Amino acid sequence: MAALLLHSVNRSAQITTKHCFISHKVSTLARLQDAHVASFHNSAAHRWSSLPGARWLSRGTGVRFMCQGTAGRLPAGRSRRGAALVLAGAAAAAVVGFVANAGHFQRAEMASRVIQVAKQDDDILEKCKGFMSLPVTDVKVLQEKKGEMCTRMELLIMETQAEFCRALEKVDGGKFKADRWQRKEGGGGISCVIQDSNVFEKAGVSVSVVFGHLTEEAAKQMKSRGKVLKGKDGKLPFCAMGISSVIHPKNPHVPTVHFNYRYFEIEEEDGSKQWWFGGGTDLTPTYLNEEDAFLFHNTLKEACDKHHPQYYPDFKKWCDRYFYVRHRGETRGIGGIFFDDLDSPSQEEAFSFIRSCTSTVVPCYVPLVYKHRDDAFTAEEKRWQQLRRGRYVEFNLVYDRGVKFGLATPGSRIESILMSLPLTAKWEYTHEPEEGSREAEMLEVLRTPREWL
Amino acid sequence: MAALLLHSVNRSAQITTKHCFISHKVSTLARLQDAHVASFHNSAAHRWSSLPGARWLSRGTGVRFMCQGTAGRLPAGRSRRGAALVLAGAAAAAVVGFVANAGHFQRAEMASRVIQVAKQDDDILEKCKGFMSLPVTDVKVLQEKKGEMCTRMELLIMETQAEFCRALEKVDGGKFKADRWQRKEGGGGISCVIQDSNVFEKAGVSVSVVFGHLTEEAAKQMKSRGKVLKGKDGKLPFCAMGISSVIHPKNPHVPTVHFNYRYFEIEEEDGSKQWWFGGGTDLTPTYLNEEDAFLFHNTLKEACDKHHPQYYPDFKKWCDRYFYVRHRGETRGIGGIFFDDLDSPSQEEAFSFIRSCTSTVVPCYVPLVYKHRDDAFTAEEKRWQQLRRGRYVEFNLVYDRGVKFGLATPGSRIESILMSLPLTAKWEYTHEPEEGSREAEMLEVLRTPREWL
Repeated sequence: MAALLLHSVNRSAQITTKHCFISHKVSTLARLQDAHVASFHNSAAHRWSSLPGARWLSRGTGVRFMCQGTAGRLPAGRSRRGAALVLAGAAAAAVVGFVANAGHFQRAEMASRVIQVAKQDDDILEKCKGFMSLPVTDVKVLQEKKGEMCTRMELLIMETQAEFCRALEKVDGGKFKADRWQRKEGGGGISCVIQDSNVFEKAGVSVSVVFGHLTEEAAKQMKSRGKVLKGKDGKLPFCAMGISSVIHPKNPHVPTVHFNYRYFEIEEEDGSKQWWFGGGTDLTPTYLNEEDAFLFHNTLKEACDKHHPQYYPDFKKWCDRYFYVRHRGETRGIGGIFFDDLDSPSQEEAFSFIRSCTSTVVPCYVPLVYKHRDDAFTAEEKRWQQLRRGRYVEFNLVYDRGVKFGLATPGSRIESILMSLPLTAKWEYTHEPEEGSREAEMLEVLRTPREWL
Repeated sequence: MAALLLHSVNRSAQITTKHCFISHKVSTLARLQDAHVASFHNSAAHRWSSLPGARWLSRGTGVRFMCQGTAGRLPAGRSRRGAALVLAGAAAAAVVGFVANAGHFQRAEMASRVIQVAKQDDDILEKCKGFMSLPVTDVKVLQEKKGEMCTRMELLIMETQAEFCRALEKVDGGKFKADRWQRKEGGGGISCVIQDSNVFEKAGVSVSVVFGHLTEEAAKQMKSRGKVLKGKDGKLPFCAMGISSVIHPKNPHVPTVHFNYRYFEIEEEDGSKQWWFGGGTDLTPTYLNEEDAFLFHNTLKEACDKHHPQYYPDFKKWCDRYFYVRHRGETRGIGGIFFDDLDSPSQEEAFSFIRSCTSTVVPCYVPLVYKHRDDAFTAEEKRWQQLRRGRYVEFNLVYDRGVKFGLATPGSRIESILMSLPLTAKWEYTHEPEEGSREAEMLEVLRTPREWL
């Protein structure tokens, strides 16, 4: 619990662990963060014109650092985070030239470490400059905990958001609107949306980092493959973060894509922590195009194969099973990959796989947009697209675990959860495509999932 | 269980009870039923032009009737139905002029009873002639069991369907398409739909009569107010019937209406039966019109007041609570009445209340259609209507118990369940109406339900 809640503790200026006392003077960083809480529209240049870059940390941050000797054994939940905190504190202290209780040799050694750490801090700042907005977590907290999975995952999803949004802006010609939002129960997110633009009817790329306690209803939604989670008085401290995106193009020949990559940390009654990754990318075309299906699946397979030969075949099947509109007897689209509860072979390896997956979101989709954005289409094809959008809504509202989890989590930002819904959709009573038509061909594939490679 | 399952048993030509054997020769009735299984379009005249009327029963039905004396005590579940069956058998037999084992006095007495019963049979036939289709249950079974609640409720919902569809056809100028469908697990329904017509974008009025065994998932959906239902091996024989309707007009100044009246019989492990009624009528305008709200609520109140002074105030509140889109913090519309688990003061009284409710569906809504169908509207008003339709979809797919029950019940006819979805809907990211606008006024009412009378 302690580890998870540090996110919120760290937002205040003072942090107390068993042996150390660190006080951060709130400075430019905090003011900058405040300035970015409001939503903003923007080119990358405009977005960050107010950022003074790396210098701004050394100029504005004053830190007092008192180490009372070897830290000893910190309380279970805090150990890793506590250590990171000390290191981060040392780095910051060095930057302002104040180190207490250090001899000559120690001073030299520390100075070398400090330069290295400051370099890493600079790297995080450099990374942040490329994001659509400041990350959800304070940059200084990310710097303090740069080695932790929560930090690395948050940076990865922010990076993926920026990369994907920029690629879509390029093919569309429009600009994403980036909304920063905070969750009063803990955490927040950045939702980037483009609506009724040139190529896209609605495109949403959202990052969220939330923490707090799971309600029993929400905990039920999180369980997959029988993962048993025992909470204290039925409540479980948790931290969840992820990137989620759905892109609905205007042209019925450009497919809809969805991807979601996420990380969970959850603490059980006995203090033990469980962590796992989940995610996937899947394609929902209005009309079947086998070449597109091959490119899409092959890009995903190549990413999977770097990590395990069974990942693609297993996660492809899982995807077909998961994105299934049971009451219609149809899959939502032509699949892709989907997985959950990934907690092996190691946290490092699992994260590396997630990194490979997120690196595919641009190459597996954006080429298809360029290829079809100018295709001619008929009113009948647009109508079929709208009907398929209706099915998309059915899946998202009736079955999608992410949506259910979101709607059941108090304080969730509904607009970010439901931005996956298309701008427009249609439901015709007993619509059935003509035999032998391209619409019937698409339905056939949805009723009997295929292998694409 | 036996009583519930008789519905299916009765579909076969031979029925055996402990002491009686009755064989119906399948005749015109069955052929007629078959002829109507296919969907048909229609004026009332066209619809029934092939029906020879009451004569047709006497002409075509041959019945052998052998009574082996006093029936004695029939098995528990069959007693009422069994008795009805004997009576119905006698009536039918009399019509073809064949009565076995009856003395002179007996014969006279029986003849008089027979005439009376035949008259009631004629009444049922007469009623059926006015319906949108033949009822779900065989007409001869309805005649046999005319006194039972299942029969009376089925006739009432068929009557209500016809009355409402005719009134809508009149105001729209179009014609409903009536689809008869059968559920292989037991029962079926008649769905009447008009789509993209003059006044209505989509209007559906559906009747269903289903029976079989409840799965545990479905049973969970049926429980309201903690009604505990214990099944044998987790399964509960049930019979459910109801009428359900959602009308989405084209003009944003004509409100959407929904009503649903239903009856359940369910048998527990120990053989005891539970029955209850549920239902309600509620209005979802795109723009607030207080005069409309008054007329609508007042019509409902008048119907309620005939039965209990607390019905309207209690069921009005229940409606506001039920049609609540929790994740939006809004009610779906301006309410009406809603109730469930109505099993008091007596079955007769409860049914009488349902009859009063169903008699309001035309007067509480159709005048509003006449009033607004020709109102001028702007593109902006149409857009607001489409956004509100999106919320309608959210409620129906995320919260509506009827939809959840339907989607979870194997063999449900999905098109009939989801015909409540609008033809078109829209989701704009973070749409918020301008302060002081008519759209904001509507939202305000949805966020804070009002008293209308």
